[in-house]
Amino acid sequence: MPGPEKDLIARFAEIVGPGHALTEPQDIAPYLTETRGLYHGATALVLKPGTTAEVAAIMTLASETKTPVVPASGRTGHVGGAVPREEGTDIVLSLERMTRIRKIDTAGNFMVVDGGVILAEAQRAAADNDRLFPLSLGSEGSARIGGNLATNAGGTAVLAYGNMRNLCLGLEVVLPTGEVWNGLRSLKKDNTGYDLRDLFIGAEGTLGVITGAVLKLFPRPKGHQVAFAGVASPEKALDLFNLAANRCASALTGFELMAHMAFAFTVKHTEGARDPLSATYPWYTLIDISTSDSQQSADDMITALLEEAFEQGLVEDAVIAKSEAEIAELWHMRETMSEAQKPEGGSIKHDVSVPVSSVPAFLREADTAVMAAVPGARICAFGHLGDGNIHYNISQPEGTDKAAFLARWGEVNAIVHAIVLAHGGSISAEHGIGRLKRDELARIREPIEIELMQRIKKAFDPAGIMNPDKVLKA
Amino acid sequence: MPGPEKDLIARFAEIVGPGHALTEPQDIAPYLTETRGLYHGATALVLKPGTTAEVAAIMTLASETKTPVVPASGRTGHVGGAVPREEGTDIVLSLERMTRIRKIDTAGNFMVVDGGVILAEAQRAAADNDRLFPLSLGSEGSARIGGNLATNAGGTAVLAYGNMRNLCLGLEVVLPTGEVWNGLRSLKKDNTGYDLRDLFIGAEGTLGVITGAVLKLFPRPKGHQVAFAGVASPEKALDLFNLAANRCASALTGFELMAHMAFAFTVKHTEGARDPLSATYPWYTLIDISTSDSQQSADDMITALLEEAFEQGLVEDAVIAKSEAEIAELWHMRETMSEAQKPEGGSIKHDVSVPVSSVPAFLREADTAVMAAVPGARICAFGHLGDGNIHYNISQPEGTDKAAFLARWGEVNAIVHAIVLAHGGSISAEHGIGRLKRDELARIREPIEIELMQRIKKAFDPAGIMNPDKVLKA
Repeated sequence: MPGPEKDLIARFAEIVGPGHALTEPQDIAPYLTETRGLYHGATALVLKPGTTAEVAAIMTLASETKTPVVPASGRTGHVGGAVPREEGTDIVLSLERMTRIRKIDTAGNFMVVDGGVILAEAQRAAADNDRLFPLSLGSEGSARIGGNLATNAGGTAVLAYGNMRNLCLGLEVVLPTGEVWNGLRSLKKDNTGYDLRDLFIGAEGTLGVITGAVLKLFPRPKGHQVAFAGVASPEKALDLFNLAANRCASALTGFELMAHMAFAFTVKHTEGARDPLSATYPWYTLIDISTSDSQQSADDMITALLEEAFEQGLVEDAVIAKSEAEIAELWHMRETMSEAQKPEGGSIKHDVSVPVSSVPAFLREADTAVMAAVPGARICAFGHLGDGNIHYNISQPEGTDKAAFLARWGEVNAIVHAIVLAHGGSISAEHGIGRLKRDELARIREPIEIELMQRIKKAFDPAGIMNPDKVLKA
Repeated sequence: MPGPEKDLIARFAEIVGPGHALTEPQDIAPYLTETRGLYHGATALVLKPGTTAEVAAIMTLASETKTPVVPASGRTGHVGGAVPREEGTDIVLSLERMTRIRKIDTAGNFMVVDGGVILAEAQRAAADNDRLFPLSLGSEGSARIGGNLATNAGGTAVLAYGNMRNLCLGLEVVLPTGEVWNGLRSLKKDNTGYDLRDLFIGAEGTLGVITGAVLKLFPRPKGHQVAFAGVASPEKALDLFNLAANRCASALTGFELMAHMAFAFTVKHTEGARDPLSATYPWYTLIDISTSDSQQSADDMITALLEEAFEQGLVEDAVIAKSEAEIAELWHMRETMSEAQKPEGGSIKHDVSVPVSSVPAFLREADTAVMAAVPGARICAFGHLGDGNIHYNISQPEGTDKAAFLARWGEVNAIVHAIVLAHGGSISAEHGIGRLKRDELARIREPIEIELMQRIKKAFDPAGIMNPDKVLKA
């Protein structure tokens, strides 16, 4: 394997100290794969630094010795961004030991955390201080803040609170050269030069390692309510979304759309899942409302919304959760929806967005094109209708060969993405580019855009050692 | 004057056509100064292109001939960003003829506009389509969208809607090389590579010329109400803000703080201004609430807020506006506050931010330090308390010499900014860096941060012709 020589491995290992440098195959194995099994990388060394200074020392040595480094956070990504390359030349830098909540300022409504803090721990630290940290997503029990920032994570509350980029006030970043940029500011307004923060956010670890962050905190909502409704079509769902957005304004925290197939698989395969409605419908919506004043206002708001929706013929049937436990059950179904496809065989996935108003047309056109190309395909579309973001997943036809179906990944992607692009959409709404969509991005974007990104990459990482071959070709 | 030769001027003039290239001193004069009279530049040529293609042709020729170009928008900035340098080497590129509203999509809640559209026109276009474009600031009648974006403008509704960065979905930018980046996307979520958009926003025209933008539209609030209250201290004002933020959540659109001196000058010098309260108070707050459902809810919300504020002893006296006209009057006083200082002589200005919770301490410390350095100084602090952003303006002592007072600009800045920095604050919360704060920024920031900005500048503008010497030293 053409990885680093033994004495170089020893020099890296010395930085993090005994027990924090993994070299045994069985210890390294978990760092070589990702959730969907699309990639299987190789490495001679996984480093687990405990401090920003150690990360800086690692990058300094890597820079001197031209050793490629792959930053790893919670490794819950879907595009292969945290997997080392197959050649074994890369070493892995895991943030898993950097889990300090450095500071919580309730008067200033922010907290300062290490890059390795698990998202659920950040949520808990906020809640313990009577605040809300609103980023919420299926993998929150293992995803880490550094990775959430590196991928500009979205999730289920984007409608009210925005993506990770909107939830971050400042960053601490170790640059590919080993220098540290201390941008840990906690200001709401600061127009002092180029926006370095937003450049590192979403760069997927290719411009530096995010070792610390200032995160915004919000008041904990006093009321919370969820409705689950069967609807006749995506058009009706869109009308329902617009009604909800107008009536509830910023109290509308989430608005999810699910195709019947996606919901049926979830009811079938997710433990404890059950259909709360008495009949089946072609589409379902989950409406989440949070109010600042009282539980009563959330209950009243959702009841009035459904009443008007029934009057306008937008919903077929609906239930309102009767407890926090029921709210959690409904959300759990939505969050396990991707997982629930696994027992049904191979799944070709898309994480796309279009303008919100184009979602129904996109779904109609994509369904037609996919069914023509793959007769019997079982389309499990679901996602954040309020953001125009659809996880357009396609399970293999029943009784067909999984490998043969998955071999058509690129072909099916091309069909779906062409429709997305015709609507001015994005081929990666929230999962990022990583390796999976790197070449496709280069194909669909004008050369000048890729060229500008390459110039930034070169300006920040002249040696080309920072998560190379991700996002951009090295 | 060492500007471009005659035949080069003719080549530039040919691009924009007859009547759109200004070379006569009386025509050029307005482009050489800025609002505060701090800079007086020189140029041989002002170009007024009518299309993005013309802007691209100008930049291509400028790039070939190494001609420095200063983009000019509404020229309402406060830091000299749109003024050509004194040597006369720069030419000016004015966006004033590019004023098309290209598209309004009410279903998608966005509009596409030229970079030269006046902010008030953009607001009007949105309102004509029953939507809100929320950016609002004193100079909205002449400021243009391209400049608002280049400076990441803030204004009075940041609390609810964010800065210009939060209000923009996509950009069209002519690069220093003459190439055009078409990033006119209208997606809420799009994680496809580095965040070029936010890099151009706030770059003050040093990385390219913003010729078009996709702006977010919002539902027009159904209710709007403003209260004006006298308070005893910034501490009480902060408590009042926290009360309002908790009670009103996202309905709280603006929360302004004003020192008595600033208010008194405004009542004295702004036409039509009057004190709505029957006694004078050391500090005043203006509270702006917008509700999505009805006027009644805005009235109820502000009444309930003031009742609780009186109960808690947070306000001394308060009025609620009785009409839209009264709301406009109250806001007009706040928006003319800087202008109202002019008849009182010289004013040394600061546009700073600190964490919201630190505003009272900052004001106390700054007042003490400034009064010690400049006995008799009349401190006219006012600003957006909810954003931690204070326009800390200081009018000269009565009966002193204006020039002698203004000669102390740097000295007084140093005093105030030292206190700002001790609170982890920003020396330019919303006005940007331009020329005025360029050298100070380089002094206060760690070298690596300036170095990263320089590398980006070089990557985008290798010839160094794009608004040189602004933000960063050429």
